[in-house]
Amino acid sequence: MHIDLNCDLGEGYAVWRLGEPGLDAALLDLVTSANIACGFHAGDPEIMAATCAGAVERGVAIGAHVGYRDLVGFGRRPLDVPADVLRAETTYQLGALAALARSAGGAVAYVKPHGALYNSVVHDEAQARAVVDAVARFDASLAVLCLPGSRLLACAREAGLRVVAEAFADRGYTPQGTLVPRSQPGAVVADPALAAARAVRLAREGVVVAVDGTVVEVAAESLCVHSDTPGALALLRSVHAGLELSGVELRSFTA
Amino acid sequence: MHIDLNCDLGEGYAVWRLGEPGLDAALLDLVTSANIACGFHAGDPEIMAATCAGAVERGVAIGAHVGYRDLVGFGRRPLDVPADVLRAETTYQLGALAALARSAGGAVAYVKPHGALYNSVVHDEAQARAVVDAVARFDASLAVLCLPGSRLLACAREAGLRVVAEAFADRGYTPQGTLVPRSQPGAVVADPALAAARAVRLAREGVVVAVDGTVVEVAAESLCVHSDTPGALALLRSVHAGLELSGVELRSFTA
Amino acid sequence: MHIDLNCDLGEGYAVWRLGEPGLDAALLDLVTSANIACGFHAGDPEIMAATCAGAVERGVAIGAHVGYRDLVGFGRRPLDVPADVLRAETTYQLGALAALARSAGGAVAYVKPHGALYNSVVHDEAQARAVVDAVARFDASLAVLCLPGSRLLACAREAGLRVVAEAFADRGYTPQGTLVPRSQPGAVVADPALAAARAVRLAREGVVVAVDGTVVEVAAESLCVHSDTPGALALLRSVHAGLELSGVELRSFTA
Amino acid sequence: MHIDLNCDLGEGYAVWRLGEPGLDAALLDLVTSANIACGFHAGDPEIMAATCAGAVERGVAIGAHVGYRDLVGFGRRPLDVPADVLRAETTYQLGALAALARSAGGAVAYVKPHGALYNSVVHDEAQARAVVDAVARFDASLAVLCLPGSRLLACAREAGLRVVAEAFADRGYTPQGTLVPRSQPGAVVADPALAAARAVRLAREGVVVAVDGTVVEVAAESLCVHSDTPGALALLRSVHAGLELSGVELRSFTA
Repeated sequence: MHIDLNCDLGEGYAVWRLGEPGLDAALLDLVTSANIACGFHAGDPEIMAATCAGAVERGVAIGAHVGYRDLVGFGRRPLDVPADVLRAETTYQLGALAALARSAGGAVAYVKPHGALYNSVVHDEAQARAVVDAVARFDASLAVLCLPGSRLLACAREAGLRVVAEAFADRGYTPQGTLVPRSQPGAVVADPALAAARAVRLAREGVVVAVDGTVVEVAAESLCVHSDTPGALALLRSVHAGLELSGVELRSFTA
Repeated sequence: MHIDLNCDLGEGYAVWRLGEPGLDAALLDLVTSANIACGFHAGDPEIMAATCAGAVERGVAIGAHVGYRDLVGFGRRPLDVPADVLRAETTYQLGALAALARSAGGAVAYVKPHGALYNSVVHDEAQARAVVDAVARFDASLAVLCLPGSRLLACAREAGLRVVAEAFADRGYTPQGTLVPRSQPGAVVADPALAAARAVRLAREGVVVAVDGTVVEVAAESLCVHSDTPGALALLRSVHAGLELSGVELRSFTA
Repeated sequence: MHIDLNCDLGEGYAVWRLGEPGLDAALLDLVTSANIACGFHAGDPEIMAATCAGAVERGVAIGAHVGYRDLVGFGRRPLDVPADVLRAETTYQLGALAALARSAGGAVAYVKPHGALYNSVVHDEAQARAVVDAVARFDASLAVLCLPGSRLLACAREAGLRVVAEAFADRGYTPQGTLVPRSQPGAVVADPALAAARAVRLAREGVVVAVDGTVVEVAAESLCVHSDTPGALALLRSVHAGLELSGVELRSFTA
Repeated sequence: MHIDLNCDLGEGYAVWRLGEPGLDAALLDLVTSANIACGFHAGDPEIMAATCAGAVERGVAIGAHVGYRDLVGFGRRPLDVPADVLRAETTYQLGALAALARSAGGAVAYVKPHGALYNSVVHDEAQARAVVDAVARFDASLAVLCLPGSRLLACAREAGLRVVAEAFADRGYTPQGTLVPRSQPGAVVADPALAAARAVRLAREGVVVAVDGTVVEVAAESLCVHSDTPGALALLRSVHAGLELSGVELRSFTA
């Protein structure tokens, strides 16, 4: 019994960092997969190089956290980017991170879209195909990490790429197995103990208790814990401890 | 008897382009090596993808024109970048262009620094080593293109990289074989016929007539013609025709 | 009988310029109002200062061409910016241009939204109010230039600001007096003579011939000619000459 | 007996902030003058608007913290900007902040250069004149805040502007009354109690104890406490308390 634990890392820019000093190093100690920002919504060469080095040192898998080219909006603003432009932007980010990962003695193992791009490729066929096309042309051995049932995973599967579905230990689920929108009550699970308990059931039984009490199936090879919320570190520590105590091995899906 | 002809390409950004519409395509028809901007001083994924495609179509060698991370200054402002940061920035640019080149069915063949970074690595050991280190770690089969006698070529040679010296058909030379500074008379050769004649002697005899009339030796495997000056296209056409008419084959140094 | 003629100017960035060398100066010779980019979608302090100086020299009215904060997308990507952020962004741009105009011996006379923001404030109440609020707080003597019937002009009128409606000499109109969408035939009037004839009827009679032949009323104090299309200068010259020959005085609406 | 206390504020960008959450508000409670970043090295419209509102609410004087146009380098990289460009850049920043301050019910009261520009205008006549020229043309009632003996204050005085010299409670001084370079021992005074004691002597007696024990005269109307060092808030609290306890009134130099 094992599962992967992923979170977002390297989301600073120039002199700025997200979260308190030392947060990224502390998070890296707990996860098995690091989604590393590639300079378009956050991240820059110096930060990416340091984050890759930290991941390699700890044996954490490196993922390209590709996003829209929108630093001002942190990649969170929905953008109607034409498919060929999005493909070029994704390729650019993949190549840049892959080179820095190699320079640090590692390699990119997977790709996960960030922010508004993540939301878009759940439903938008053209954007999903653009991302998949970029990955397949760049390195067909890379895995693609996203929501189960997303267009992205469907396109990636068609293209012969390895697909990895993720679940969220710190998000509420509907009875249909989708995420409760952030604007609605029950969207976020902020209690560390509760998040840990949910993580354990997700890992051991492949189920989660929805907002209405229903037990729904959520097949996931990876658990995501958000890193940009207050208390993220405490929550991740709790999830990490909970999984280990219940006998679930934390292991990258690429291992 | 053969020589390489290189010029700078893909130096637009977002909606902007350098030079008249169609200039880049016309230049690509004439050169054997394209120095492609990598998004730091100019260039973006869309432009880079299109420029790589144009180069692959014509059998033109693709070079990474790496520059300082300074879009506002077009990479022309001297910057005292720490060596590890410059190494990460160079690696990032190399990786991004390599991925787009591969996606277009080609590959990066060489690296040439741009603007203020070019000037810096002629003399500055630390910056030269940072660039060479980035290249060697990324892909030790890449050539490094720069001024003969530069620190960059010396460091690249030490690191076991292939080095390629370039001469300038459109620049004046001192009796010592260095370029006449742009602030002094005789710095620029604007006459297309004269530039062609100089290109032929550089290619056939390895010499150039300096500003004082002295004939100086300049060993170069590649000739650079600037693309960002008015009349650049006419000058490049003249150089191209002059070389062909005098029996010098135009051939990439990577061929 | 008189009318104002406005076009977009100063849309370069760093080393880049839109259009052929000297285009902005040639356009400035022909218009009575200059919509000057303020650095968010295009423009920078150096370009803005030079464009203001050129406008002051020729007695051309200076307008703040405020846009979304999206250099990568040239302000043409629709963005769902919160009202308070849009108000701050508009205020920032107004203040920056006003200071540079003053430094050049002139003053900002009006505000016109650019690109996707222009399209948004035609219909979007919240964004229209945010722009109007910024203008009213900054300088209630500024005019607001936009499409007749737009939410922006309605809000501006309510706020007690002077409103100026504009028509397009180079765009097709529907029988309802709205612009033919760019995706449909008849959207653009590219023939200089035809554009001139339409400009004259707009100025003298307040009417335009719609795509179906209907003559529709379009009340406008200003005519806009686009500057970013090939042939823009020829078209503007034709419109300018046509108006003058038919006895319509070209005069800023602020004169 | 009174003195002004200034520190840097609003140095975030997009989603990023410098320092721990709530730091800016806590600093604003303690100072009498806020040096607000204007978007070139840090700051953006939203952050500037919020910082201006916070300053107005507390009766804190608003200063334009103008910097080089270098977000990537946080304005800390020395840049050889031509005088006319620097003048336009300074004017742009002044105008943008002035508009946001006005919108918040306040006004810009003074100008202080940031980072590498600050260091430059201490010695560089051309850059000092460019900044002063921008201020004088924009609003000759603004004060200029800088190091005593700097070229900037000399130029500002010549131009008829009000000049305000500042001293540093948290920096070491040489026997000549200049700052100990950051690369040398004794450059920084990190102990809150010591910084408070130095602040009191600077305010009451106009003297500071240099690194060699000499007591040197430093005439200053304002004390600067850095906000971007760990422990900045504790140090500022100590300085604030020390001054009040010793009977020195904290009062903006513009009051």
